[in-house]
Amino acid sequence: MAGIERIRNVAMRVRREADAGNQVLVVVSAMAGETDRLVQLCREAAALSDAREYDVVVASGEQVTAGLLAMTLQNMGVQARSFMGWQLVRASGIHGNARVDAVENALLDEALSAGTVAVIPGFQGVSDDGRLATLGRGGSDTSAVAIAAGVKADRCDIYTDVDGVYTTDPRIVPRARKLDAITFEEMLELAGVGAKVLQPRSVGLAMREKMPLRVLSAFEDRPGTRVVEQLSGADMERNAIAGIAADRNEARITLTGIADRPGTVAAVMSPLAQAGIAVDMIVHAATGGAQASDLTFTVPRASLDQAQSAIEKLRSEIGYAELLTDDKVAKVSIVGVGIRSNPQLAAMMFETLAERNINLLAVTASEIKVSALVAEDQLELAVRVLHTVFGLDSPAKSDGAAK
Amino acid sequence: MAGIERIRNVAMRVRREADAGNQVLVVVSAMAGETDRLVQLCREAAALSDAREYDVVVASGEQVTAGLLAMTLQNMGVQARSFMGWQLVRASGIHGNARVDAVENALLDEALSAGTVAVIPGFQGVSDDGRLATLGRGGSDTSAVAIAAGVKADRCDIYTDVDGVYTTDPRIVPRARKLDAITFEEMLELAGVGAKVLQPRSVGLAMREKMPLRVLSAFEDRPGTRVVEQLSGADMERNAIAGIAADRNEARITLTGIADRPGTVAAVMSPLAQAGIAVDMIVHAATGGAQASDLTFTVPRASLDQAQSAIEKLRSEIGYAELLTDDKVAKVSIVGVGIRSNPQLAAMMFETLAERNINLLAVTASEIKVSALVAEDQLELAVRVLHTVFGLDSPAKSDGAAK
Repeated sequence: MAGIERIRNVAMRVRREADAGNQVLVVVSAMAGETDRLVQLCREAAALSDAREYDVVVASGEQVTAGLLAMTLQNMGVQARSFMGWQLVRASGIHGNARVDAVENALLDEALSAGTVAVIPGFQGVSDDGRLATLGRGGSDTSAVAIAAGVKADRCDIYTDVDGVYTTDPRIVPRARKLDAITFEEMLELAGVGAKVLQPRSVGLAMREKMPLRVLSAFEDRPGTRVVEQLSGADMERNAIAGIAADRNEARITLTGIADRPGTVAAVMSPLAQAGIAVDMIVHAATGGAQASDLTFTVPRASLDQAQSAIEKLRSEIGYAELLTDDKVAKVSIVGVGIRSNPQLAAMMFETLAERNINLLAVTASEIKVSALVAEDQLELAVRVLHTVFGLDSPAKSDGAAK
Repeated sequence: MAGIERIRNVAMRVRREADAGNQVLVVVSAMAGETDRLVQLCREAAALSDAREYDVVVASGEQVTAGLLAMTLQNMGVQARSFMGWQLVRASGIHGNARVDAVENALLDEALSAGTVAVIPGFQGVSDDGRLATLGRGGSDTSAVAIAAGVKADRCDIYTDVDGVYTTDPRIVPRARKLDAITFEEMLELAGVGAKVLQPRSVGLAMREKMPLRVLSAFEDRPGTRVVEQLSGADMERNAIAGIAADRNEARITLTGIADRPGTVAAVMSPLAQAGIAVDMIVHAATGGAQASDLTFTVPRASLDQAQSAIEKLRSEIGYAELLTDDKVAKVSIVGVGIRSNPQLAAMMFETLAERNINLLAVTASEIKVSALVAEDQLELAVRVLHTVFGLDSPAKSDGAAK
């Protein structure tokens, strides 16, 4: 029942878009709990299952929603029909984690031109071998973007369980503010450092396809956040910094007294890459004249022990004095397209943290992001002071709707 | 959970067939309760739904079973894969009640030749317009027969919730016996008059395609009933009568004093046909010299009122004295290929019923069936005495396994 109510809710939004004269194409996910139920059935059937059969089972969840939404729309007087993933979406790659290769436009264009709302199950397509293939985590978002790009849609609206992208985690900063607009790059950096609104894969695809997104609440009817290629017009007045990201999933390794010669960093990183450990921050400031220096980097906290033993095995080859670890660290980042043009922003970040006596254990920077590794117990303070100093606090506490 | 256990049970039978060196193709239905759940979702979404969208929703049940059975088989070490209805089965006709037109053999043959067990969702195919189409009631049986015929299988085993076809309803005659073999014609007559083991549509298709069937229990591992074109060998020794059918869904209408001229029967039947009422037995013995006679026929009990008013509206056109109805009637039938060659069997039926003072309200006969309409309160007695006189009682009470 909860499922059908939500489908009706979606149908009403779709009708509004159709009534406004838009050609509408809807990509749907499975009803709440349905994918979990199907995954559980697969687990009961076989501990380790053929991904192609797994795809057959779990893809049915979105298929059911597509049929139900189409009939709900028809029942509301909206001309609508469902299409199946195998009729439209060509996918390739690994079953259970496939990529969208192409969207069959002809069928869709015909329906859309006739004023029919097209309803498509997300998360799936048909593979080269003619079988159902699912797209892996975040697949419904990714299908939506791929299909929107395929039909050259004006924009792609993504309905989620949050009502937009916030300047930071509202659990840390109650005065966090919903952003009107954010760029793809900023969104990717925010997603990469902890904001879990959209799967990075769907944002990356939207960026490549230059497909403007809107992140909206599936439950409430209020403006969300636009995700765009470049800020323009009124959005330009937005703060230079889009948001502050916090990430506790960090552990630090420092190797002291390593030889200051070419190949040392590679000698450390290669065994980690072979072990499938993603290294995040890397700080290695060669001191020039000195014979030896320190190398500091971070790994996901759960991989710390594995990383440590991988390096210790190669101690003689790498050559270092001591291996120091610290898993009570966290990363705070400022993200914003303004960083590119204004070097003062990074300086402002360091000064603000210094004023509060927050020690920087490591620092890295990209074009639109500056990250600092700090002691974990100083993370929340760091996020709050940066949120304030970069002008991101909303005027009234918890007023997410304020500009 | 119950669902997965049943799937394992099916998988073990499939493995046994595959281990015996057979090429095996399995057509599956939805898990218990699943189709009802999906139908209910459709009802909640829209009181009256587009059959094509309904098909998208309900077809998912069989799809899930197909994936789960394939992975269960693989887990047992059996080479297996699922195919989808849209990959193999071309269907035409009305959505929600489509017919199987053709089965794509090439894909299947390739898999079967490679020793792979093919698992196919029943009840569905792809329509001419490229959309999912379901086959309507009993559709999984029908797909199984159609697909078996498409690949020229040696036989088609149908697993049901009964363990075979019985000589009559065991609730009426505890000594009813499971038949080793029955012909398609007999099965159709038994199905048409009340035995609900297989959908008549699947039997009709098997007869047309000359595809031998076996009706087996999905729960117990024991011999079922073979359904064949002609009895041969040991089966020839079977009784001339295969079974006794009982049908309470009858109501009788008698028109007295109708004009004994051409067109009178048609004048009665046409309005009933237009109202969608299926007339079953029709008895009209023109008396020759007389100016008027009686017409007796039966309709489904639930249609009696509707039939009566349809006829009364046309009273002046038809021309009859009285319209008499009786909804306390029932039909008892003997069914068997022996009837064709032995006219004594019908006589034996009438004599047996007369000995018990069972009055015959109407009688009809086809090549392999003789039916008598009797008072409903005499139905069970009629079935029991006929079951005994035609030698159908099992030697020991309730011993279904006895020959």
